[in-house]
Amino acid sequence: MKVGIIGLGLMGGSFSMDIKNIYKKSKIFGLDSSESNYQMSMKLKLIDGKLDDNNISVMDVVLISVPVDETVKILPDVLNKIGNKTLVIDVGSTKNQICKSVSDHKNRKQFLATHPIAGTENSGPNASVSGLYFGVTNILCEIEKTEKYFLEKAMKIFSDFRMKIIYMDSKSHDEHISYVSHLSHVTSFMLAKTVIEKEKNEKNIFDMAGSGFESTVRLAKSSPNMWAPIFLQNKTNLVKALDNYIKNINDLKSKIENDNKNSILIDLNNINRIKKILGGIKNNNEK
Amino acid sequence: MKVGIIGLGLMGGSFSMDIKNIYKKSKIFGLDSSESNYQMSMKLKLIDGKLDDNNISVMDVVLISVPVDETVKILPDVLNKIGNKTLVIDVGSTKNQICKSVSDHKNRKQFLATHPIAGTENSGPNASVSGLYFGVTNILCEIEKTEKYFLEKAMKIFSDFRMKIIYMDSKSHDEHISYVSHLSHVTSFMLAKTVIEKEKNEKNIFDMAGSGFESTVRLAKSSPNMWAPIFLQNKTNLVKALDNYIKNINDLKSKIENDNKNSILIDLNNINRIKKILGGIKNNNEK
Repeated sequence: MKVGIIGLGLMGGSFSMDIKNIYKKSKIFGLDSSESNYQMSMKLKLIDGKLDDNNISVMDVVLISVPVDETVKILPDVLNKIGNKTLVIDVGSTKNQICKSVSDHKNRKQFLATHPIAGTENSGPNASVSGLYFGVTNILCEIEKTEKYFLEKAMKIFSDFRMKIIYMDSKSHDEHISYVSHLSHVTSFMLAKTVIEKEKNEKNIFDMAGSGFESTVRLAKSSPNMWAPIFLQNKTNLVKALDNYIKNINDLKSKIENDNKNSILIDLNNINRIKKILGGIKNNNEK
Repeated sequence: MKVGIIGLGLMGGSFSMDIKNIYKKSKIFGLDSSESNYQMSMKLKLIDGKLDDNNISVMDVVLISVPVDETVKILPDVLNKIGNKTLVIDVGSTKNQICKSVSDHKNRKQFLATHPIAGTENSGPNASVSGLYFGVTNILCEIEKTEKYFLEKAMKIFSDFRMKIIYMDSKSHDEHISYVSHLSHVTSFMLAKTVIEKEKNEKNIFDMAGSGFESTVRLAKSSPNMWAPIFLQNKTNLVKALDNYIKNINDLKSKIENDNKNSILIDLNNINRIKKILGGIKNNNEK
């Protein structure tokens, strides 16, 4: 299998590892706007050569794993350059504008919009993790616009990766994921910001922080170049989610100010249900 | 060594395990307002018997590991009942009101206010973890009010636990810890609340959440009975921290609404410093 990867970061590099793990004879061709990411990917043997205008047409699959604002810009051009057997997949954390960007493209049927629920807070090709895609949920959007041949090609890979497939329209995807993923990133970034601003002496954070703080700000280590465009592209949904979140924070603040212990206890006990829900998630990921 | 533990939850049960691990011949006597916690602690062999008004005076050490509003209520009475060789330690996440509650007590010199930076999101005696106290930071407050004999008794245990000791006054402790710990708990609880309210169908959360969401809401599984009193007892500091946090969230929201990508990128890049700071924390904990 010949695979092209555009964007040699965590998602692209890990995809290469997982493809090579399953399809031993595959050849991976990579492309990145950063020469050092490209060189690092060659050195790490994540790719076997360069993806370019000459060889893109013979690829079986092209994965697009660049920031979502870049995806919108390059996806139409990629669909122009591919061969008539090439499947194009993107793995962006937003889906609506990406789908819109090629809705009238003559090769729309060769594209599948996907969102694998996978990743870490690290970035760059040397953050690649073997098995990142294995067993995780993958949300596919607007599959009715992908021709059967290409959809089956994609499903074969996802099946080999033992992914759990969910189907959604792109608008619903962006609405739900703004809560379950994008909001977490905002709250984590802003928690880290607030603590850094307070503790001018970083040693205080180092000395006093425990595993709870570390867990809650883990996502604040995430790549700004990846996340700023996600926040902006999912602006409408994210702002609504933030409004609800801010309201909840202000409500709890009032209850604290008014010593309303009973009401706080009722709230926190209700929120504790997340334990059961997350227990389900963990069991799911472990399968 | 004879050790009394008042409050047989995660912190109390784990203390018992770590004491028994280091001092093989120690005997642990426990007390809990919940009969089932007491029975469970006996069953798990976390304790060897009941702590009561008859044997409390012969204890070498009494650990208080109950919610912080309970600590304030029972601490003076505990200091009344102990023998003249008994050291009393509390492990609450607030220190100012606890210190105040016994500032004029005739046995104040036998008490040491501590805050080990240790814990998990789980609670109850069966959440006890062996080694929870080993190697972690322990913040000691107002040590000048603890008599040398009792301070040395405590330091021997902390040294055997290989704890890293920090000294603070109780007001500074509560101010800094409101940012580095209490704020994380509020943001995590409220993130979980916002997502649960949005996703009436909990399967959506189960299906769409990844490890990032799981990490960010981990603290929302924490014990309400422990955390509601902490929020209230550290109200003044926590409300200030929340005001700063809400301001930061609102600022980012405005930047998203105004498509101010450059400013968001500058922010997130600056916040990424938390990676270096937390790297230090991790190395520290691993020592």
